[in-house]
Formats: sequence, C-alpha cells, structure tokens
Amino acid sequence: MAGNSFGKLFKLTTFGESHGIAIGGIIDGCPAGLILDFDAIQNELNRRKPGQSNIVTQRKEPDTVEFLSGIFENKTTGTPMGFVIKNANQKSKDYSHIKEVYRPSHADYTYDKKYGVRDYRGGGRSSARETACRVVAGAIAKQLLKDVKINAYTSSVGDLFLEKPYQDLDFSKTETNSVRCPDDVVAEQMIAKIKAIKKQGDTIGGTVTCVLQNVPIGLGEPVFDKLHAELGKAMLSINAVKGFEFGSGFCGAKMKGSEHNDLFNEDGSTKTNLSGGIQGGISNGMDIYFRVAFKPVATLIQKQDALDSSGNIVEMQGKGRHDPCVVPRAIPIVEAMAALVLADYQLLDRMSKL
Amino acid sequence: MAGNSFGKLFKLTTFGESHGIAIGGIIDGCPAGLILDFDAIQNELNRRKPGQSNIVTQRKEPDTVEFLSGIFENKTTGTPMGFVIKNANQKSKDYSHIKEVYRPSHADYTYDKKYGVRDYRGGGRSSARETACRVVAGAIAKQLLKDVKINAYTSSVGDLFLEKPYQDLDFSKTETNSVRCPDDVVAEQMIAKIKAIKKQGDTIGGTVTCVLQNVPIGLGEPVFDKLHAELGKAMLSINAVKGFEFGSGFCGAKMKGSEHNDLFNEDGSTKTNLSGGIQGGISNGMDIYFRVAFKPVATLIQKQDALDSSGNIVEMQGKGRHDPCVVPRAIPIVEAMAALVLADYQLLDRMSKL
Amino acid sequence: MAGNSFGKLFKLTTFGESHGIAIGGIIDGCPAGLILDFDAIQNELNRRKPGQSNIVTQRKEPDTVEFLSGIFENKTTGTPMGFVIKNANQKSKDYSHIKEVYRPSHADYTYDKKYGVRDYRGGGRSSARETACRVVAGAIAKQLLKDVKINAYTSSVGDLFLEKPYQDLDFSKTETNSVRCPDDVVAEQMIAKIKAIKKQGDTIGGTVTCVLQNVPIGLGEPVFDKLHAELGKAMLSINAVKGFEFGSGFCGAKMKGSEHNDLFNEDGSTKTNLSGGIQGGISNGMDIYFRVAFKPVATLIQKQDALDSSGNIVEMQGKGRHDPCVVPRAIPIVEAMAALVLADYQLLDRMSKL
Amino acid sequence: MAGNSFGKLFKLTTFGESHGIAIGGIIDGCPAGLILDFDAIQNELNRRKPGQSNIVTQRKEPDTVEFLSGIFENKTTGTPMGFVIKNANQKSKDYSHIKEVYRPSHADYTYDKKYGVRDYRGGGRSSARETACRVVAGAIAKQLLKDVKINAYTSSVGDLFLEKPYQDLDFSKTETNSVRCPDDVVAEQMIAKIKAIKKQGDTIGGTVTCVLQNVPIGLGEPVFDKLHAELGKAMLSINAVKGFEFGSGFCGAKMKGSEHNDLFNEDGSTKTNLSGGIQGGISNGMDIYFRVAFKPVATLIQKQDALDSSGNIVEMQGKGRHDPCVVPRAIPIVEAMAALVLADYQLLDRMSKL
Repeated sequence: MAGNSFGKLFKLTTFGESHGIAIGGIIDGCPAGLILDFDAIQNELNRRKPGQSNIVTQRKEPDTVEFLSGIFENKTTGTPMGFVIKNANQKSKDYSHIKEVYRPSHADYTYDKKYGVRDYRGGGRSSARETACRVVAGAIAKQLLKDVKINAYTSSVGDLFLEKPYQDLDFSKTETNSVRCPDDVVAEQMIAKIKAIKKQGDTIGGTVTCVLQNVPIGLGEPVFDKLHAELGKAMLSINAVKGFEFGSGFCGAKMKGSEHNDLFNEDGSTKTNLSGGIQGGISNGMDIYFRVAFKPVATLIQKQDALDSSGNIVEMQGKGRHDPCVVPRAIPIVEAMAALVLADYQLLDRMSKL
Repeated sequence: MAGNSFGKLFKLTTFGESHGIAIGGIIDGCPAGLILDFDAIQNELNRRKPGQSNIVTQRKEPDTVEFLSGIFENKTTGTPMGFVIKNANQKSKDYSHIKEVYRPSHADYTYDKKYGVRDYRGGGRSSARETACRVVAGAIAKQLLKDVKINAYTSSVGDLFLEKPYQDLDFSKTETNSVRCPDDVVAEQMIAKIKAIKKQGDTIGGTVTCVLQNVPIGLGEPVFDKLHAELGKAMLSINAVKGFEFGSGFCGAKMKGSEHNDLFNEDGSTKTNLSGGIQGGISNGMDIYFRVAFKPVATLIQKQDALDSSGNIVEMQGKGRHDPCVVPRAIPIVEAMAALVLADYQLLDRMSKL
Repeated sequence: MAGNSFGKLFKLTTFGESHGIAIGGIIDGCPAGLILDFDAIQNELNRRKPGQSNIVTQRKEPDTVEFLSGIFENKTTGTPMGFVIKNANQKSKDYSHIKEVYRPSHADYTYDKKYGVRDYRGGGRSSARETACRVVAGAIAKQLLKDVKINAYTSSVGDLFLEKPYQDLDFSKTETNSVRCPDDVVAEQMIAKIKAIKKQGDTIGGTVTCVLQNVPIGLGEPVFDKLHAELGKAMLSINAVKGFEFGSGFCGAKMKGSEHNDLFNEDGSTKTNLSGGIQGGISNGMDIYFRVAFKPVATLIQKQDALDSSGNIVEMQGKGRHDPCVVPRAIPIVEAMAALVLADYQLLDRMSKL
Repeated sequence: MAGNSFGKLFKLTTFGESHGIAIGGIIDGCPAGLILDFDAIQNELNRRKPGQSNIVTQRKEPDTVEFLSGIFENKTTGTPMGFVIKNANQKSKDYSHIKEVYRPSHADYTYDKKYGVRDYRGGGRSSARETACRVVAGAIAKQLLKDVKINAYTSSVGDLFLEKPYQDLDFSKTETNSVRCPDDVVAEQMIAKIKAIKKQGDTIGGTVTCVLQNVPIGLGEPVFDKLHAELGKAMLSINAVKGFEFGSGFCGAKMKGSEHNDLFNEDGSTKTNLSGGIQGGISNGMDIYFRVAFKPVATLIQKQDALDSSGNIVEMQGKGRHDPCVVPRAIPIVEAMAALVLADYQLLDRMSKL
C-alpha cells in the first residue's frame, strides 16, 4: 500500500520525479458540478514556483498545469481529474556528481536502502518538486470549500519571530512581500536575514502559521481520524517539516486546566480558543490555527562531507540553485494540504447523520 | 469512512463507549505464527489502568482483556483477533447531571452537533477509556517487533522539565515511580507538583518523550505516508494531544543548515541525529525520538460555567474521579501507538523490493 | 491488508472461528439517528441459524447477538457498533479426528499452507458460521435502506429449477416453507430432493435468485467499483459460491444487441430489463436481479479419501451434523450481503454532486 | 471514495474520457527492481486497440503509452508510475447528435442522473476506452508475476461454443486468428458469425474463458477478499460483463457433493479440479479457470428509439465505428485484470506469516 495517495473521499494520488518527464496526479472523488477557476489554480502554482523572487531558488520552471480529464465545459464531471506538469528543467547531467553519493540529511541513503535502486537526479521522488501536484489539488479543494478562509504565513525565520497573534494581522498583506509575512516590518527583517544566510552559502529554518476560518462545525472522524490528527499528518508529510502544533500546542502542556478551558458563549462559540477550533477531534466552528516547523534546507553551497555507496566519506559541494529558506514557498503548500484535509472531511461529514 | 480503524496492513479497529457494556476491538492483519505472551499484554493494560497510584484517577476498572478469536494454542493464526474489555464501572446515573450540558473544552458539544445524538455517559466514545484497546493492540505489535525497543517517559509536567537528553537516561527507571519519569529527583518534583494541583481541584498538562531504538532501516512510505507523518497522526489521535515534534522539532526551525545536517559515518550511521532517525520519511537506522504535548485535563473539581443544550450558561462542577495530569497514564498509550505504526510499516516494507 | 472488512463507508469487520469463544464484528460508518428494530435483527439471524428445519444441519446454536456499543436509547450514535454472538457449540473434541487431516474440497489444506498454522476445529475461520455476523450487519443495513425491498429465494436445487420469472412470484411465500422457494409446488419437490440426498449421506448444490426493488437511481462508483461488480464480489465472498450473474447474465452472452437493448419509456424507465437495473455500473431505478450458484457442501456422511499432513491418503467420514444443501440457509446471507452493498453505495452516492 | 482505483498493494488508478486529451493512470505499489519489457507492454495494448482486424471497430487509435515516472534505467524504482495514452481520435463533433440523447442500454442516462452533468462525447468516462489503462498496468503485473501463465480466449460467440475443455487447447494458437479462439475450425465459424452480424448492423455477445497456471499456493484473503471474489469483481468491472463463474461454476450448482469433491493426490494436488484452483478463497496450486459473459454491444448501426433529456422518445442511429462483438478485444483486458489481481494478492500474501 504505497503512500502516494492522500484523502479518503476527496483523494489525490501523485507521481513524478524531480527530473523525469513530468510530474502529475489524479484527483478522484471531487463532486460533480464544480465550476473551476483555472487562473486561481495556476496562481497557486505560481506562488510555489521557483524563481519568483530573489530569496528563493533561481531555477526556472514554468510549472504550468495541464488537465487531461474529469472536466467538461469548465465543470467537474465527477470522474477523475488527471493532470500533468512538465519538467522543463530536466537535465540529468547536473546530477552525475551525486550518482554514487549520499548527501547528508537528504533522503538519498534511505531511498537506496529501502528500494535498492534510486533515481539520483535532483533527489528523484524525494524532491519537494512533488508538492506542486499538491498545490494543484489543493487549489481545487479551496474552490470546493467556498466560504472557508485559509491563510498561512511565515511566522518565523530562524530565531526571528512574528510575535503578533494572528488576530492582529491583515492577511491581505501576506502576498505583498517575498517572504510572505503579513507584517511589513518583520517581513523586511526576515528578508534581510535570508539574504545574509544565502550569502554565506547556508540555509535557515522557520515556521509557518496557518489559520482556517469559517470551517463548518462537525468535521472530524474520531477516534483515529480526528481533524487535527489528519491536519498534522498532512503537514508532516510536507518535505522538511519537523513539528506540528495546534491551538495552545506545546505551550498548552505547561498550563493548568483552569487556565486552558475555553468557556462557552450562549451561541456555542467560546470566549477563548486555546482548543484551536477542535474539540474531541471535531471542529467546533471557532478558528482553527496551527503552526508547522520547517528545518533548514539540507543542500548548502558549502563544502560538506558526504558518504559514497562504497562506504567512503567524500567531500562534496552543493551546486545548482537551492532555496536558502524553504518557508516562503511552503506557504501555498501548507494551505493546499489544509484545503485537501478540509475538503475530504467535509465530504466525510455528509455521512454522519441519517 | 468512519475513523475507528488504524493501520493499513496491521490494522486495529476499536469500538466502545466509556459507560457501555464493553469496549473492544479487532486486530486484523497480524501475521500467523506469533506466540503471544498474554501476561505482557495485561501488564501494558495495568500500566494504563485507573487507580494504579495516588496521582491518577481513583476509578476502579480491572481492565481485563478477553480474546475471542484469532489465536490457537497461544499462537496467532493469521485470522482477525477479536477482543473485549468489560466496563466494570458503568453506572450511568453518575452522569445524569451532564445529560443536557456541554462541558467546556470537552467533546460534548461537537459530538452533539456532528451526530445529532449523544451518549452523554462519561463522555461516551470521546472518553479516553477507548485507548485501552489501543494498548492491547500495541502490546501485540510490540511482540511482533521483537528487537525494537520502545521507551516513552514523562519529560515535563507543567513548567517542570526533565532537562537531560534521552541518551543520559536509564529507561529501566521509568516504571519505578508513579509519574513515569526515569530520573528519581525530577520524578519526585513532578509527583509533588501533581499532588499540589490535585489538591486545588485543578489539572495540569505535560509532555511525553518517546524513543524508538533498533528500528530497521527502510520503514516509511513516501510521499504522504512518511514514517514521521504517521507517527504524528498516531500521537495526535490520542486524547488531549496538542502537538508533535520529532528530531530537532521546533528547535530545528531556528537552526542553520550547517548546524542541522547530520554528517555520515562510514557505516551509514550519522555523527549527530537532529533528523531523529528519519530521512525523507524513511527510517535510517538511527534512534527515532519524538515529543508529544498533552493539554491539561478539562474536567476540574471546581465550579465552572458550562452551556446547556437550550443555550443557557449553567454552573457545573466535575464530580467523580478524574486524572489531575494525564501524562503518567499516557506513557503506555504513546508506546502502543508507536508500536502500531512500526508494526504496520514493517509489514508495508515487505513489498518495497522484488 | 487482511480481508476481514467489507464496505467503504458502511463498513463491517468480522472476527471469529467456528469453535472459538465467540464470533462478532464491528459496524463502522452507520449514520447516527437510526432507530433500531432489534427483533428484526434477531429474526434475520434465526432465518440463518442451524436446526431451524429438518432439511438443515441439526446443530444447536441459539445465535443470539449482543450489541456492546454504538447504540444509545435504541438509536445509532454514529460510533462503531461492536457485537458478539457466543458459540454455544464449541466442543473441540469433535474435531480431533481432523487435526492432521485435510478434508477434500475444504479449506483445510489452503489455510495450512497460507498461514502455516490452523485452527482445525470445525473449519475454524473458514466455517460458514462467520456469515452470522454478516447477517447482523445486513439486518441493520436493511433498516437503513428503508424503502428498498430485498428478496432472495431458492431458484434451484440440483437440476430442479423454479422456472417462473421473479415477476410472477409472491415473495411473501418464501418464508412459508423450509427450502425458501416462493412456489408451493416446486418447494415441495425441492424439499423432497434434499431429503433424499440427505438420506444418501450426500449433499447437493443450488442457486439463489435475489431481487432488489426501489433502489434509488445513481448507485455505483465506476469504473472499478461498479454496483454489479461489488454485488458480485459480495456474493462470491459467501462460502460455497461458484458463480454470479445479473440481468441477462450468461444468457445475454448468446444474444444480439437488437434483442438485448432495453428501450426507454418517457419517464426514464425501460420497457424490458435485460440490463438488470444497472447501466454502466450505476443503478437506473429498474429492478436489480441476480443469480448466485452454490456448490454442494463438501462434508459428506460417507467415507471419503482425505490427505494427512504427512502426505498420506487416509480414509475419513464426516461426522457431526452438516447441511445437505446450503441454499435454504444461504437466503438471508445473500440478502444481507446485498443490503450491505446497497447501504454502502447509498452513502457513497452522497458525495457525487456538489 | 470514488471508484477509479483497483488493488490494495499493487494499485492502479485510472483517469480519462473517450474524447478528452488523454487517458492514463498511476500504478502505485509495484516493488522496486523490476526490469520492464516495454515492447511487451505495447504489445498488450496492440492486442486491445481498435482497427486491428476486420471484425473489430475500424477507429484509428495508435494507443501508444508514455511513462512519465517511476522508472529509471528501465527498472521500477518503487515510486509511482504515471502514464498517459493520448487520444488521437478526439473529434467531439461526431457526438453532438447525442448531446441531449440517452442511448438505450448505455450509461448516458445513469451518468447524467448520478452526476448531474455529462461528458457526452463518445460515452465519456463510461467508454471502454478506459480499459487501455488496465491493459498497461496488467502488462506490468504480468511481468511481476513471471512464472504464472495467464491465458484467456474466446470460448463462445452468440450460441457458437468452443466445446473443448481448456486442457485440450493449444494456447499458442489464440493469437493466430482475429477472434482469439485457440481452435482453428471454431475460430473460422466465429469470425463468419461476427461478419454476418456486422453486415446486419447488429452486434452479438460472447464469453471469455481464462486460465491461470502456476499460481503459487496461498493467494487469497478471506473472508471477504477471497481470491475468486476479487477476480469476479475485476471481471465484472469490465464494460459489458454480465456474469462470472469459476471452476464448476453454475454447473456445480447442479451437482452432488460426492461428484463435486476434488480428491487429493499425495503431493497435495487434486485428481479433479472442479474447485477451479481455489479452496476457501485461497489458491491451492491447481489451475484457476473462470468464464466471463459479455453482453452484445449496445450501439447498433440500425435505427433505434432513444430518450432525450426532455423526456421525448427520439429515433437515432449509431454512426461511427463500433465493435460488432466485444469479445476479441476483451481477451487482453480479461488477462490484464487477472494479472492485476494476482500481482496484488501475491504482495498481500507476503504478510501472511511471520
């Protein structure tokens, strides 16, 4: 049961390697009758694509999605939507120097051990290029979700944090700067930090905060498929993610019950929201918010020791064009995965009652 | 596709409410030929059961598991193992006072909204009593995993942290104290803290750290079913969990790539292990370690405002016998869920190669 | 991914061996709010149970189902329904004579080869006793389906056929005779035939016809999960089944298109119904009808050669009390499996449109 | 949970409409290290493609498969294999005459009712064109299965039957004639019959027999996912199939146990094989054989009454180029589906024992 599918009813299956002919996927289970906005889909891809600013990788990939099925006269038909994104940048020669080399903190070693064979070109299947397919499906999920608002943003780069709570932010500012932080001042600082790191040939981690608003009450399938458990899995499946917390998160573990409980208003909303919009694994209508930790990108433009397949330590240096910080391009990916979870769980909830 | 099953090949499905006749489950997909140690299974249940010490709930539940099928002459037969745990403590009268009341930060409200009907007795399905079934299945998974060592322990209670890294701990001490912290001094402090909180009629959160050793290389099913993504989902599905991080976790998000990368030794092991034993979603043979955040229990032995189903704010006070801190009893649950993931992924890995 | 679950959204997982402590199952995914008629459930079990007439096995099993969860005040709550049926008749000594023996045309040999271990008592998991759990779940599915009418009946025993088309039958007569054939005259002949076969210590095959009426238009999930494909799988999963055909079936393969096409009426119904109520894998609102072939029971009350586990041919004779013809007791099982498919597909269809 | 995936571990998901840009699919779960024979894959597609002889449709489709991922240096890498087959023949204008018309015994009506929207061009998703993707995946499954021999052939056209049992046939002759019947004399008669039918503008049904040899003992996952149940579902999911029987099939339902039981040889093989190679849902090492009934193609080159979406009966006549008998082109599809089941179940059986 290979792990290239996500979702139960609204299901995405992806394929493709970084330097193969194309990447792509199949979205199966989208209800019929959804009128698609193709510009909105491509726009999400553009938010993720390389070369969009001077703080991300300068690789060139147009990342144009082509739909092959499941849509008729701009409307979903209920049949599976196949799509492909051609790999423009598929020169495998760039990667011959890593053919026999396992780069540190990459997936080279583990893929080789697991499968006994490896497409070493640009990380092959383990490349984050695959996430473009998630962005396509997520963009459709967003359209299916209509009134739900999904806003992710960069909440830290290294030790530089956006301290304001999300309630004090203007999400319309997120796309106004290259680091996708909806606070002008902090955004400038983050950009400066990433540029400095890049100059050193180094990379830096960061966190993404994501806020889901207008989520219907009742989404979540206890006891194992709780809404936050699936959101957590979705986020942890994104390349470079090391942690996930929602609502009060790790801070909540330091609190007392008398501080942490969210008291009700008469309409069922709560006065506070340390629960993060989910009780017992089911959405309660309050804002859902969570935070995702991304490690620094492993490819450095510095000399590093690596291991070759014969068991020798060899010196290597990342060439090519890599992201100094993955977070700005991760924003649309986090949103896409959140949308996929919500769309799937909204369909699942159709089965809850008679 | 209701969410009461966990695992793909080694699959657990559970049923049961806190105050119904019994809880139980079916384990489907355990390979045939495993000789079961029933004492070890019951021992895991005893680690989770109420009343085991003076810092946990004083409810009385023998929590004796009875297997109904799938085992012949103490050996698994490859057919599904049905099991039940009777509910000794099923007096529904204790709960009549919450029949029409949604307790704050409980699942009462969301279950009612989702399903339109609710078994209000003791939280019904949303009660953590259900996790006893996970412990049963996890105990069998542990036996299947043989050489893999799974050790969870209490790493914080409120703001009191066990600062030592896991490498400096003696896991054989975990079971020597009631809070399950493998450091005598810190354990005493934690126990004192929980007793103080209990005296106040309050509750407190905490964290559990879990270490998986001798895990075979190659477990994990990219791109969505990465090993850490499934571990994260498993942990987040446990009642009261608010966060999950593995390896460097949220700290890793503050680091630079040159600090974070784990350089190889010639045998494929790594000099450091900020990756937490997983690269690209696949185990690399190093220790896997992760941390799980638990919020404070929502039931207080204090007066609190609640909401009734007619939309009135009403005062209520938790009666009965609740845990002042969920973490000590969560240790075997965390271990059980980790074992379920590893057992499942070990089976999945059987199909990776020809 | 062991095969003890059936259904995608309305899902049944079963456990239990013929001579273990109990058989049982979990129904997960039944929508909340269904008021259950427990007498109707037990009545379906009674239709299947041994000893109900003199043409079936004379084993004594009360086959009383006990529900353990998922129901509150007679209503489904949306949480999983666990249930057990105790095995009254679990004397394993009766079966010591087959401990080392593979009976011809039983599953003894294949289970032993597949799993390397075998619960030989009464066929263990391969016994048709397991189908009692299907009947329980099917009875609930029937209640969920409300207006849908499901009628199975014995359409042949050996070479004795009920020639009348189903339209000419009065289904209310099915339960008036022990062979469950809704035609008095043919029923008498069938009963006589089975009695004669029984006297010879032999067994005989037969067919069941099943008619599903008032099925909503739109059930079926092409291209693989077509409604008739799932019905076929459901029927073929019943013990002793060798074939399945729906609508024109094997006869249709002899016909010309100009004879076989079902022309429309103006209301979308069709003048003929060789399609059997399903077009392109989706129900069209016409009656669905299909036929299921059952082989003769393999256990004879005659001497037969068998194989022992050391590779010797040994003579054996079936003792105990076996069905001379499985078909009369198979009627409620066929209906149950049909109900499970329809309930599941009715839920699946909820996600077809926006 | 839309139904466009087949298989549990070796999983195929397909997409594509008859007259869209392309059809295609993703094969997920093929073990790494399989060296692929691409000519063999294309050869299977050629056996299915239109225009290959004068008794099949004269549409022109090159049906060339392009693999996009999952293969490196001709070897499977364990990652998903995406593939596409372009639709050469995608002129939608041919189909404007059926835009508002439901053709009798087609899926036009049911798709429209189920989804509320319909790609009417050439049947859209309900077209058998989709089966080309199954043939691609099946060809890879065949290569994975190595020693297993899979041979399907035309066993009847209308009322003209190949009476010889499969043991008396030379399967190498199947591909020597256009009707794919491994008996020269009967093949000639069948071809003549189809030509006569075609001349009438009519169509005719038929049956396919399929024989699986050298299947390992132990494949099958009781109680629901019995090997023959999955084979049955696989076959019933093919367009135009109305019935499935294996081993003794419907004839077995007429027999007595003393005639039907397969007695053992000392090596575990059986003297007869009415069981059809499967006992209790698990392969026993004997030949598996089954028969599949195909109805006559619904599109006639004759005038027929149809229904329009406003509820009027309208006269229509199939234009275009349709198969007078679907069976010759169905042979590779039946084989492909059988191969998919066996490959999947061979992987599943890896989990049976410790």
